[in-house]
Amino acid sequence: MNADSYDAMPPAGATAGEVLTRYLHERAAGFLRGLSLRGENEAEADALLRGSARRIGGALHTFGPLTDPAWAEPLRAELAWLSATLGREPQHAGRLARLLEALRRLSVAAPEGQEPVLAGGTGGAAPPAVPAPASGGPLALGAARAGALLERQLTLARTRAHSASLQAMGSSRFHALADAIAVLVSEVPLTPAAAQPAQAVLPQLAGQASQRLADAAAALPLGRAAHPYNADAVQAALGAELTADLQDAPWHQVRILLRLTRYAAEVTRAEGDTAERQRLADAARLLERHREAAESAAAVAAAARTPRIAPATAYALGVLHADQRHEVEAARFAFSRLWQPAVPGARRE
Amino acid sequence: MNADSYDAMPPAGATAGEVLTRYLHERAAGFLRGLSLRGENEAEADALLRGSARRIGGALHTFGPLTDPAWAEPLRAELAWLSATLGREPQHAGRLARLLEALRRLSVAAPEGQEPVLAGGTGGAAPPAVPAPASGGPLALGAARAGALLERQLTLARTRAHSASLQAMGSSRFHALADAIAVLVSEVPLTPAAAQPAQAVLPQLAGQASQRLADAAAALPLGRAAHPYNADAVQAALGAELTADLQDAPWHQVRILLRLTRYAAEVTRAEGDTAERQRLADAARLLERHREAAESAAAVAAAARTPRIAPATAYALGVLHADQRHEVEAARFAFSRLWQPAVPGARRE
Repeated sequence: MNADSYDAMPPAGATAGEVLTRYLHERAAGFLRGLSLRGENEAEADALLRGSARRIGGALHTFGPLTDPAWAEPLRAELAWLSATLGREPQHAGRLARLLEALRRLSVAAPEGQEPVLAGGTGGAAPPAVPAPASGGPLALGAARAGALLERQLTLARTRAHSASLQAMGSSRFHALADAIAVLVSEVPLTPAAAQPAQAVLPQLAGQASQRLADAAAALPLGRAAHPYNADAVQAALGAELTADLQDAPWHQVRILLRLTRYAAEVTRAEGDTAERQRLADAARLLERHREAAESAAAVAAAARTPRIAPATAYALGVLHADQRHEVEAARFAFSRLWQPAVPGARRE
Repeated sequence: MNADSYDAMPPAGATAGEVLTRYLHERAAGFLRGLSLRGENEAEADALLRGSARRIGGALHTFGPLTDPAWAEPLRAELAWLSATLGREPQHAGRLARLLEALRRLSVAAPEGQEPVLAGGTGGAAPPAVPAPASGGPLALGAARAGALLERQLTLARTRAHSASLQAMGSSRFHALADAIAVLVSEVPLTPAAAQPAQAVLPQLAGQASQRLADAAAALPLGRAAHPYNADAVQAALGAELTADLQDAPWHQVRILLRLTRYAAEVTRAEGDTAERQRLADAARLLERHREAAESAAAVAAAARTPRIAPATAYALGVLHADQRHEVEAARFAFSRLWQPAVPGARRE
């Protein structure tokens, strides 16, 4: 995003309000830049809009005591709406790419020079709409059809998300939000607490965000997740949908708290140590992978409920679903090792 | 098996032939004991017969230069036939138990106090023949039907294997083998090499077996397997059947060489160090788990080719197949860590 543009240190002795305002100004400018870029490069513009919206919303959340809540709370809600709306299209696109890549990996051909043995029937399935890979059996045929089904469904979802984005950007709701951001560039409604020295207030509020992250991460089943092949995440594969949701929710929560902690560090310009910053960035990347795999698995389960699909297609979707739940587990494993590198007894199976 | 009954040390200064003969006598006696036990406890008797047959065959293989090949080779072939024939019924039973347990694990209910959200249709499937678990959605319904299908197919396979065992035990082929084993109790046709001192010959031949094992294990992709969640084994899940077979074969080969090494140690009465014996036993257990998971995955793929199964059933079979291929991968991971505990860089993802 546009974190790089905020590269000047705040003046020593500045008030908390001054530092926060300066950060919000920068982000608001980024937002308005994204808006003007939209005619040229929609994807880049949307990414800039989302990044700015998330950072403004995050700063207003973490440093809440410094701004007027009657102004900040509704603004945060509108920023969250915009960020979610603009995020859907790239998410559907990423999900489709991830699932097609997984299907390709799962349908890998036998090593060269080996002719595959084509086994039995395809379970009464109709002729394939999509040609099967050269060296696949009937199950690989199911993979091709599963890929075609996911492509149809996720492309449709993506098109709808794109329309929704366009509609949102043309709405009076968005124009009101853009107006509020434009005001933010000139003026931020501060509370009396914002008059204190930055060093007396900002590190403490950022520290609270870090503590919320630490607490939420400590409540995760990290010891268990650090044992490879514990098969926890895949438990949900044939259970009720809610099993997966309940199981994944605390990890998603940590992902959000991690983001807030990283944005708070942008405000305080905490130099921190590079290793710690890198650790947080790596952790964020792993939990992003966790989210993508979990949502991809859910998209596969949804595709499997399409009426009248062939058994070979359903079979391939089942394999793919379990594969994505294992990706969920792999992300949890990597996060656990990163977050608690010294879990006793977790090194070996 | 009956390894415990062979607990007296061979006399110091014995010839290689004397020590080998003594071992074969013990194992042949075990075989005949298994035969007489068959009327009382068929499963136990068959296990004793198989264990004895495998050990006799293994000793004849590893210590081949000590016995007349014109006698030993055909006997080994007949022992292998019997062992394979008797092994099928317990294998089908074990496979079914493993798969039903995996389905149960994969269909785990949401945590207590949470009501599952029952989602959409079941893909045009007919009403369920088997009731779905209390808190499962339509996919758990597929799990129940997949379980019923596997139960039917593997029970049928088991019944057929049982009939084949009974038929084999009543055949003239078996009677000829039992006669050959009875002869073995009294006399083993040795070569001149068997007249050498046991200490000069047996450790060397057993060492060759160990070397074959070490070479075959070193050729496995252990570095790769020691990285958890490498997704290698699951590559085969939607590929041609042959992909899995080709990928699994070297691991199965190591399992067999490991067994031969352990049986050879019974003949030489190598005291070895307890840690090394334990390591070999653990490695054998892991590669047995590898084989069971691989064969279970193949049984699931076979069930998925049943004509006219419901999509929800096929979906559950797909999830189960991928799960078993991940079990294959988990067994490889554990074996790799056991066999090469110091692979550089393999400790972390």
